This record gives sequence, structure tokens and C-alpha cells, in this order.
Amino acid sequence: MYPFPPRSMGGMSASLDDLPLRDDLRGLTPYGAPQAPLPVALNVNENTHPVPEDVADDILDGIARALRDVNRYPDREFTSLREGFADYLGHGLTPEQIWAANGSNEVLQHLLQAFAGPGRTAFGFGPTYSMYPLLTRATGAEYVTGTRGVDYTLTPEDAAAQVADAAPDVVFLCAPNNPTGTPLSLETIAAVYDAAPGIVIVDEAYQEFAPRESRSALTLLPDRERLVVSRTMSKAFAFAGARVGYLAADPALIDALRLVRLPYHLSALTQAAATAALRHAPTMLGMVDEIVSQRDRMSATLEALGYQPYESWTNFVLFSGVDDPAHTWQGLYDRGILIRDVGIPHALRVTAGTEQETSAFLDALASL
Amino acid sequence: MYPFPPRSMGGMSASLDDLPLRDDLRGLTPYGAPQAPLPVALNVNENTHPVPEDVADDILDGIARALRDVNRYPDREFTSLREGFADYLGHGLTPEQIWAANGSNEVLQHLLQAFAGPGRTAFGFGPTYSMYPLLTRATGAEYVTGTRGVDYTLTPEDAAAQVADAAPDVVFLCAPNNPTGTPLSLETIAAVYDAAPGIVIVDEAYQEFAPRESRSALTLLPDRERLVVSRTMSKAFAFAGARVGYLAADPALIDALRLVRLPYHLSALTQAAATAALRHAPTMLGMVDEIVSQRDRMSATLEALGYQPYESWTNFVLFSGVDDPAHTWQGLYDRGILIRDVGIPHALRVTAGTEQETSAFLDALASL
Repeated sequence: MYPFPPRSMGGMSASLDDLPLRDDLRGLTPYGAPQAPLPVALNVNENTHPVPEDVADDILDGIARALRDVNRYPDREFTSLREGFADYLGHGLTPEQIWAANGSNEVLQHLLQAFAGPGRTAFGFGPTYSMYPLLTRATGAEYVTGTRGVDYTLTPEDAAAQVADAAPDVVFLCAPNNPTGTPLSLETIAAVYDAAPGIVIVDEAYQEFAPRESRSALTLLPDRERLVVSRTMSKAFAFAGARVGYLAADPALIDALRLVRLPYHLSALTQAAATAALRHAPTMLGMVDEIVSQRDRMSATLEALGYQPYESWTNFVLFSGVDDPAHTWQGLYDRGILIRDVGIPHALRVTAGTEQETSAFLDALASL
Repeated sequence: MYPFPPRSMGGMSASLDDLPLRDDLRGLTPYGAPQAPLPVALNVNENTHPVPEDVADDILDGIARALRDVNRYPDREFTSLREGFADYLGHGLTPEQIWAANGSNEVLQHLLQAFAGPGRTAFGFGPTYSMYPLLTRATGAEYVTGTRGVDYTLTPEDAAAQVADAAPDVVFLCAPNNPTGTPLSLETIAAVYDAAPGIVIVDEAYQEFAPRESRSALTLLPDRERLVVSRTMSKAFAFAGARVGYLAADPALIDALRLVRLPYHLSALTQAAATAALRHAPTMLGMVDEIVSQRDRMSATLEALGYQPYESWTNFVLFSGVDDPAHTWQGLYDRGILIRDVGIPHALRVTAGTEQETSAFLDALASL
């Protein structure tokens, strides 16, 4: 985590325990997947395809224009970017239904600041995205974990019953789910919405990797003013380094987020880069098709190797049947391949890479 | 604030009151200075000089390189950027003493999340930067306002006595102070530190506009592990649009901020842009000299016009002797000049612009 040598400044040698840190933070360690410089990094569900050169050129042109008045504060309402997201998402959405922030984590943080916080609760069906409890507790709210059925699926009846029982202020529905890849039906989302007293967030970070004919939760937005559909440019748009998350919801809900965001939270460079990238959505989504085909090859080969891959509508595959995940993880690491142990017994998670990266992973796994 | 027409989506017509918003947010309106497209904008203490073309070219080169692997998450430890800040600040600082975030507001938010939050208090001497109470309350902490002496100055004895009395978990010392421009002596900072049980933040957002011979609070860091000196690239570096704030403190205090930041909070584009801009510090600080000379001309002319400008070590001037600030503000607005009514009776605040902008403001004011 810390690339610098031990402390050696004259007189500067405090430890964290010497500082008046909040009690609820004492003993914690920072969140984060290891950042190891391995040749094949398939651990954090990035899009392993670089942004195509002509798209990068157009992004750079947009940034060059933004630099001309970077001495001024950015457009606090990121007007052009919201127009870009509304166009991209379709479904008749308008810019006033769009919000964005520095990564979907910040989007979720804004939602929790407005609708959770001290004295309130948020709820998710585990195993799911590991940041939900961390983000929730960071706002002072309590996090409640629900359960999933066979192969991590959820039925409308079971999901709605659990939510009705917990009566949380915020529900997280990761659809498709990370780290399992599991699809979630619109019927389940609608049932949870009806059972929930508070905000329901459908986290569609991986939606672009779902089958083309599947319907997004965006289609459920009309007449559901407590429903939020969040997305990210980190995955399908190969933009993890640019930190751009966004959401669609009722305009009144967007107004609530204006109360908690920091002023000028989205830089002029971020706005320009994301706006330009969105103009190339068809090119970027072309890479998605390639990734999906590698994912499906990965699942088929994992099965042939004797593992049990779970159904995935994302850009990664969770597979079980791993006798000793730590041992397998280390064996792959030693062969230059980084995947993720997400803490599920006898299972590992791997991102679908390029054809070459996917082959490297499968060959290394077969050789263990 | 809202550039879009009233809501008109079929079935989407909730109001904020219909949503389960937190009780403490009900009735609030979003923070933010009006963003009006006037020819002469001297309202938010921006650096009105654009980034010079050769600097912008170098920044763009850095961003072009970062775009090559923008599909990957950024360096979570922003290693190169911390090296750049340590070099720029000098005083023997090392990268492990540096932190950065999306604007100094986010830097302050991280500090409050780690050291304030529910059940704790933060303290500042009013009038001061209006975001301190908003950021404090957003983390669930209470904000306590201390008082200043004649012309908004603070003596070591008075400041230390007020802090000892309030015993806050976090103290904000804006030095020089916004919105008044007032310098703050190192003796006062040291006295407040000795009297404070918690973290002491010296916000040096405007430090580069202070006299060259004045000493920064950075010189006080050794042996003071609860002291923090925050800075921003928004002002001296003409980088408000890029959203880059930073701080220097004991390495243990930096570790505390790793517990509360969102993972990958600084984008690869932000890191590249800021790192490149820092390499051109001498060029950027050349603009500072020009701004300081316009600030001093502004103060002298305001005095000649019968107003009372306060001593300023910043890139703006607060001046009193304004019979009806709202009327004067509107008169300037009607002449295409935007300044700021910061809510201090019979006073207005104006940013030092280019020579031309400064003349435009002074001429318009004289004509009222």
C-alpha cells in the first residue's frame, strides 16, 4: 500500500494511535485491492482494452478546449455531460434526471448522505459489492445484509419479504451482481421497490455486458420516484482511470443530491473527457461484444477444467470448485496473472480480458 | 442554478418533500455562488489569468500519456503527484507527508471524516470561509464560531483562550483569511495549537499571495503531529477547473485519511494534469506577482474613492464603507461586473483580476 520508506523526519514520528482519530475508525485498515504490476491483471473487473486511438484523440481535443479556461471553476451543473448521459441512456430520459460524480462510489456516497446517514439503515443482499457496507458506515448509517438463494439468485417473493422485514432507508440491488455475476429480474426489482419504504438503488455497473435483449431497470423509472439506476463509465467505456459514475432518477431526487455534493465536485477536465467519450459509445460498445465472447469462452473452459462457473451477465466470472483458493490464487500470481479472492469459500473471481489475456489465464490455471 | 425547464416527464413529478430525505437536510438549498456569464467575473477569487499556452501544452502531453491506460484504475496512492507537491512546498517535506483530493473542500472533508463526525465539534473564527460549517455539519459534527478582534485580526492570547474554552476536535485557521484577506501570525497558530486538544488545520489557500518574506505554517510542522497545512491549486496555479487541493502533515495523519477517502478518489487525468502543472511552478508564480500588484492598486484606488479596504494577503480585497451593498452589487452587475456580497454589513469583496479587469471594476465603481 505505502510505496515510501519508513518515517525519518526529525521530530515527526507520531503513530495513528497518537492522533485523535474517531473511535469507530480505530484499528481499521484502508480498503483496496492490491495494485501489483503483473503482466495479466484480471482482478478488478477493468476493461482490459485500451481506449481506441481515434476516441482518445477526440477526448484530448475536448480536454484541450477545457484547459483554455481551467483557471475558472467548472460548470457546477455539468450541463453538457448530463445531456450526453441522457442521450446515451435513452428511454426518454432528460438531463434533469441525470447525476454524475467521481466514480460510482461517489455517486453512491451522495445517495447515502442524502437518504441514509446517522440513525438510518441501508440494506444489500450478500455477497455483493464490498463497498456498500463501507460507504454506508462512513456516513454513520447501519448496514444490514440479506441473503440470496441457490446460485446467488433472488426471487421477487423472497427479496421483497426480506426488505419489508428490514424496512431499510436505502436498498442496494447490484444488477447484475458483483462479485457473483448473477442477473436480477425486473420483477424482483419492482417487488423490492413496492416493499421498500425508502430509496432503492439498482447498481447497473455491469449492465452493458448483459444480453442485448435484457431490459434495464431504467424502464422501471416512470412513476417510481424513489428508484435510482446507477451506472459507471469504468467498465463498458474503459474509463476506470477517469473516475466517472452516474445515475438516473426522478428530478426531485437529483435535487436532493445537490444538497450534499461538494460545490464543483466534477472537474472541467473530467466533464470534457466523459462528454467526448460518450460521443463514441458505439465504438466503445463494440469492445463490449468482444469481452462478452471472452467471458463465455472463459466459463466454458472453466467448466471443461472441472470448475463450476456461475452464470454471469458481467465482464467477470465467479467460479467455485476451487479446493484451496489461496493456493490457486498464488499459483496464478507466480505465473504473472492476478485474479481476485473475494472471500467466498472454494471460489475465485476473474475478469474477462482480451483474447490473449483470457488464454493466458486459462492456460495457467490448466497447468496448476 | 437549474438550467433545465420545469419537469414534464410522464408520471415523473415528485417534489423533494415526497422523498425520504434526511430531516437535517429538509428546507436547505444548495450551496454555491451564482454562475453568471458576465464579461468581468471577480466574484469567486479565481485566478483570472488563463494557464499559459506552453504550460497547457505540457499538461496536455501528460494527459495524453495518462489516456493510454485510462481503462485501468488510477494509482490509488497518486505517487508522482505527491512527489510533485513535496518538491513544490519544500521545507524538507517528503511525499509521505502529502495528501491530495478533488479540491481543497474534499481535502477538508477527509479531515473532518477522520477527526470530526457525529458527536464531535469543529471551530473557526468568523467571518471565515463559508464552507467550514457546511462541511462540518455534513459529517454530522457541530460547528462552533469564535470571534475576531479589530479589523478581523486575531491575537495569540485571545485565539488560544477561545480555543481552550471550546476544546474542539478540529480547528480551522484560514491564513490569510477568506473573505477578509487578514494575515495570521505564526505565533497565533502556535498558540492555538498548544491550546487545542484536537487537529488544527491551517488553510493556506491564498498563501502564495502573501508577501514573499512571510513564513508559511509549513515551518511549524515539525514536532506538531496534530497540525495540518492545506493548500489549493485553484488560486495561484490558475487551476480551479481541475479541482486539486492538497495538504501537508505528519505521515500518521496522512494514514488516517486513507481510512476515509473513497478508493481511487483522484483520477488519472487529474493526477497527470496537476503533476505537469507543478513542473511549471515558477511560470505560474510569475502571474501571482502581477495579481498582487493589481490587488494593491485596487486597495489604493478603493481608498481614494472613499472606501475602507482591509489589509489583504490574498488575491481579493474586502472593502467596507458601502452604504447599500446590494445596490452597489447590482450597479456593478448591470455594468457587466460580478463581485461578491459575502454578508458582511456595509462591505463587499472583489477579486483582483488582470490589469484590464481591475480597471473595469474600479471605473465602474467610480461611476456609480
